[in-house]
Amino acid sequence: MKTSEQYPLAPELEMSAWINTPKALTLAGLKGKVVVVHAFQMLCPGCVSHGLPQATAIHEMFADDEVQVIGLHTVFEHHGVMTVEALQAFVSEYRLAFPIAVDLPSTLGTIPSTMKKYSMQGTPTLIIIDQQGCIRLHHFGSLHDMQVGKIIGSLLAEGDVALLTDEASTPSVMLDDTSCDDTGCRI
Amino acid sequence: MKTSEQYPLAPELEMSAWINTPKALTLAGLKGKVVVVHAFQMLCPGCVSHGLPQATAIHEMFADDEVQVIGLHTVFEHHGVMTVEALQAFVSEYRLAFPIAVDLPSTLGTIPSTMKKYSMQGTPTLIIIDQQGCIRLHHFGSLHDMQVGKIIGSLLAEGDVALLTDEASTPSVMLDDTSCDDTGCRI
Amino acid sequence: MKTSEQYPLAPELEMSAWINTPKALTLAGLKGKVVVVHAFQMLCPGCVSHGLPQATAIHEMFADDEVQVIGLHTVFEHHGVMTVEALQAFVSEYRLAFPIAVDLPSTLGTIPSTMKKYSMQGTPTLIIIDQQGCIRLHHFGSLHDMQVGKIIGSLLAEGDVALLTDEASTPSVMLDDTSCDDTGCRI
Amino acid sequence: MKTSEQYPLAPELEMSAWINTPKALTLAGLKGKVVVVHAFQMLCPGCVSHGLPQATAIHEMFADDEVQVIGLHTVFEHHGVMTVEALQAFVSEYRLAFPIAVDLPSTLGTIPSTMKKYSMQGTPTLIIIDQQGCIRLHHFGSLHDMQVGKIIGSLLAEGDVALLTDEASTPSVMLDDTSCDDTGCRI
Repeated sequence: MKTSEQYPLAPELEMSAWINTPKALTLAGLKGKVVVVHAFQMLCPGCVSHGLPQATAIHEMFADDEVQVIGLHTVFEHHGVMTVEALQAFVSEYRLAFPIAVDLPSTLGTIPSTMKKYSMQGTPTLIIIDQQGCIRLHHFGSLHDMQVGKIIGSLLAEGDVALLTDEASTPSVMLDDTSCDDTGCRI
Repeated sequence: MKTSEQYPLAPELEMSAWINTPKALTLAGLKGKVVVVHAFQMLCPGCVSHGLPQATAIHEMFADDEVQVIGLHTVFEHHGVMTVEALQAFVSEYRLAFPIAVDLPSTLGTIPSTMKKYSMQGTPTLIIIDQQGCIRLHHFGSLHDMQVGKIIGSLLAEGDVALLTDEASTPSVMLDDTSCDDTGCRI
Repeated sequence: MKTSEQYPLAPELEMSAWINTPKALTLAGLKGKVVVVHAFQMLCPGCVSHGLPQATAIHEMFADDEVQVIGLHTVFEHHGVMTVEALQAFVSEYRLAFPIAVDLPSTLGTIPSTMKKYSMQGTPTLIIIDQQGCIRLHHFGSLHDMQVGKIIGSLLAEGDVALLTDEASTPSVMLDDTSCDDTGCRI
Repeated sequence: MKTSEQYPLAPELEMSAWINTPKALTLAGLKGKVVVVHAFQMLCPGCVSHGLPQATAIHEMFADDEVQVIGLHTVFEHHGVMTVEALQAFVSEYRLAFPIAVDLPSTLGTIPSTMKKYSMQGTPTLIIIDQQGCIRLHHFGSLHDMQVGKIIGSLLAEGDVALLTDEASTPSVMLDDTSCDDTGCRI
């Protein structure tokens, strides 16, 4: 049986702005809750049709003191039009109700800081962090609602014992084309 | 913290026939697995459009040695046409792959034995039984895939410790009309 | 420009029973209306999930004096369980509201009379007949709602002039296996 | 019987930019085709989930020499972020393949020129223009695919005779709140 300590500690998020929360959230401050980070881009079709509705379902289905959903706007293409102002309009029109953060733009390249730190492959990416702050799922593309429910249910049940095996934390492969298909947008 | 012993023990299923399994299954023989019983009728629209696809998703998503899905054909209306032969044709045409049992007809009334024993209100009904054989969910109507995934994930994670709070095992209310709507078919 | 006379005259339906209508319908009696015949089997998954909801949409969307929807129960397999009584229970539970007829069983083989006369390949089959009683569409499998709407709209607009080109009335190929898949059930 | 002349002539579109076409389209130049104008905003949820997929279905289902689909980006809110550059990124990511035009911004108010000229109430709005250039449908909100198919089918069939009755061309009511719901975004 693997303990939570055997899973990689989730590195702190690096954000430049927050929407839908009076103050910035930190993973350190969320210890004791399961944290679900949905990384998306507002112009990513798979995020809009599948990922964000799923994030909303998690936000609505689980108690606030057990599960924290965070939307993470990880812009790696079309930077000039996916601005904070555009995101605010998007969040308002789509009536998203959970906290959403803007990934800190990189000073060096197109990929923002948190996205790089987590070696994400594109959007949508779902990251689930356990109550001890360890990464338990790191998935690029779509996952069935039942699968996501299972993982969150497992993490809520384990309390301070780590029981879950998962597909987590494999370093992602960097692909050389930036494009969106039905699955999502790759870097 | 409630232990599994505090939940009602699931009474044994009473079946008259089985499909998709070489031998009859018993709850006693399934100890150590989470058991998901999907009670349905082949002419119940909500079962066909939602319940049975969900049961199939559970069957496909979880390992055979962890979760056992059982379809339970609980005929309480139109007995003359929802026969075993009709069910076999239905199972074949819909390509259902998990074990399906025919609830033992009652000698006294219209409601079959297992349905009566569990005080089910109609179809679809979802019953989830933990690894110790206790009822942890007893739900009439539809449940979101994420909710079902959460419960199964919780029960798999608890091992021999019962951690879950749930909506389980409230004695169901017997309604006086037999009719189907978008939710399902009531007794 | 093809005139309606160039399309094959739709042979009269041969039915053994009717549901949802006080008296039997005949194509002769429906001249002046566009007639949409949806051939189905109650145990055909593609009929239940797609074909019958589409037939219901046509029934609800078009005026009764312009378009007549007829459900045609063309049983070519599992005859022992898809009886008139079973169909009545099915129609009641699924709340189908348009006239539904039972195709006259053959005295010789498994394929009922109207199905044979029209050389249908399986279920679902959609047949659309113009105001002059000619076959304008003969399609096995699913069709997009927009495509069906286009054809009906065209036939309503042509009045007594035939303007439409279509895929109609090619003699269907008889296949040698009886099986259902996502598309439908073949003979 | 109403003739096409009895329907209002569709006023010419006023555009500031075009995407997916080598040259600007004009209604005058499209005489002889049925023209389907889908007015949308890239941040309108009902347009993204329903209207644009329907426009794509029309574009794919009907022959290019019979039906011309035009996307019309009628920005009446969030002007600062729904720019031409943002629209180009959106069209690229969503892989929209039909010609899309940017409604000419007004020098006086928030509502662009074509939107004002047609008295549109919000997005999505569907306008269908017959082969003679007359408005035959003017609808705010969603329409069933079958309904849209019926109207286009009727207009293709009528040739140079106008047979269709429709809900067209009622002057729209101007509402005083700008907001989006499941139906669309109102002015």
